[in-house]
Amino acid sequence: MPENPETLPIIRTVSELRAVVRGWRLQGLSVGLVPTMGALHAGHLTLVEEAKRRADRVVTSVFVNPTQFAAHEDLGTYPRQEAQDAALLTAAGGAVMFAPTVAEMYPAGFVTSVAVGDAARGGPSQGLEGEFRPAMFGGVAVVVSKLLNQVQADVAVFGEKDWQQLMVVRRMAADLDIPTEIVGSPTLRDDHGLALSSRNAYLSEAELAVARKLNVILRQAADQAAAKRPLAAVERDAYGAILKAGFDRVDYVVIRHADDLTPFAEGVVTGPARILVAAAIGRTRLIDNMAV
Amino acid sequence: MPENPETLPIIRTVSELRAVVRGWRLQGLSVGLVPTMGALHAGHLTLVEEAKRRADRVVTSVFVNPTQFAAHEDLGTYPRQEAQDAALLTAAGGAVMFAPTVAEMYPAGFVTSVAVGDAARGGPSQGLEGEFRPAMFGGVAVVVSKLLNQVQADVAVFGEKDWQQLMVVRRMAADLDIPTEIVGSPTLRDDHGLALSSRNAYLSEAELAVARKLNVILRQAADQAAAKRPLAAVERDAYGAILKAGFDRVDYVVIRHADDLTPFAEGVVTGPARILVAAAIGRTRLIDNMAV
Repeated sequence: MPENPETLPIIRTVSELRAVVRGWRLQGLSVGLVPTMGALHAGHLTLVEEAKRRADRVVTSVFVNPTQFAAHEDLGTYPRQEAQDAALLTAAGGAVMFAPTVAEMYPAGFVTSVAVGDAARGGPSQGLEGEFRPAMFGGVAVVVSKLLNQVQADVAVFGEKDWQQLMVVRRMAADLDIPTEIVGSPTLRDDHGLALSSRNAYLSEAELAVARKLNVILRQAADQAAAKRPLAAVERDAYGAILKAGFDRVDYVVIRHADDLTPFAEGVVTGPARILVAAAIGRTRLIDNMAV
Repeated sequence: MPENPETLPIIRTVSELRAVVRGWRLQGLSVGLVPTMGALHAGHLTLVEEAKRRADRVVTSVFVNPTQFAAHEDLGTYPRQEAQDAALLTAAGGAVMFAPTVAEMYPAGFVTSVAVGDAARGGPSQGLEGEFRPAMFGGVAVVVSKLLNQVQADVAVFGEKDWQQLMVVRRMAADLDIPTEIVGSPTLRDDHGLALSSRNAYLSEAELAVARKLNVILRQAADQAAAKRPLAAVERDAYGAILKAGFDRVDYVVIRHADDLTPFAEGVVTGPARILVAAAIGRTRLIDNMAV
């Protein structure tokens, strides 16, 4: 029960969560899930809205999942603001917030891992973020399979901002026959087109001005790719433009098949395509993507 | 629908299976699952009986899972006798038999793998069968997670004959929060104490006489272990006795903690324990285990 009767209930344990969901099921209500790492912004709230359009009750999980961070990454400093998250979810019409502890999610003796492909078989976890953050998709696959099994929702909504993650989750849910529909929801952008991200909070004013140029460069590159310009040239020019805009490092900027993220063997776009980027300003690493 | 109205329905697709289970749920019926690789014998039927005691309707899956066989193993020759299996399940009171094709279980693009531990973290899949059949528990973890998610049963019953597999499945279901209760059912033995196994069908009369000595040796070793005889001596003597009985090879005969299968650091039994064996006669490899 909430301490403040005006905010939604915050649930800490899987057994309490299941009891709440069971109660909804007995009333014939459908259930949606929005998995997040908290530090909620307007982008997350569009996911809650999408889930509300598709289900009667929406569970939003807030869990900064340690297994998807590498040792050198920002697990310790990742923004945590639970009271504000609860207030935002209440305003957005969320039914409950599920904020388990690490011990609740990974009790002593936990040893299971889930991989959505590997070097030999390929799969959506290979390359791009999977190359630069090798721990991440294994961690995502485990925590999302757990959340899906805990909630047993009709539908789970994920942001298209993490496009590769969405493809990984969709593949995993299909492969393991998890009966929850996986839905992607479009990226929300600020007035300058910058994709909303919890990590934008790390940016100084000067860095923010640089970050806002990224979406413009992506849009231009996507338009060139759609016009059948050779992808090697499009990617090379985008790479240079991102550095010239003031980014300090580009991990990748590539145009790939939209679903399985494999390259176009033909060297030009021949079907549904996505441009994906990861680039850093100072110590902040941003990702973005767009349909071509 | 069955061709012979006297035999239970054989279901080939996940969507048909889910429709049947949904119908049961709407009637308020509980559901049990017994995963098998077919070639059913009386041991399997005790699993069906156990599931019937715990649930209103029992699904028995019959699927020779290719991903749990290594290239040199007996996938191609593993006994397949679907009509007889269906007749036995009908007599045992099974509600439906789920016998999907390999393409239904592993469609094009399938890439997900599940591991219940690894060399660094340990876990019940490490050592014993995991050492001698490295492909097996990965294959088991994937196919069982799929079956559990497909059926969404209240309870799933596994034979204690495959004790390590039961521990792997129990750990995986707990770790991934799969909400099906995992139940172990005691090994059924013939009049000579030989554990019933589909692979016993490979044995000649002479080999069968040898195989029937295994349980006697295990029982003696278990009794010695229970009497606090040092485990190194118990295991060494059992190893020799199995070879002397006529087996051609002993992969392992060990006494371990019953739940996580780790060795007793004290060198004697200090808590719940299990003796586990794998040994071969000719080309047939048998496993067995008992409580200490």
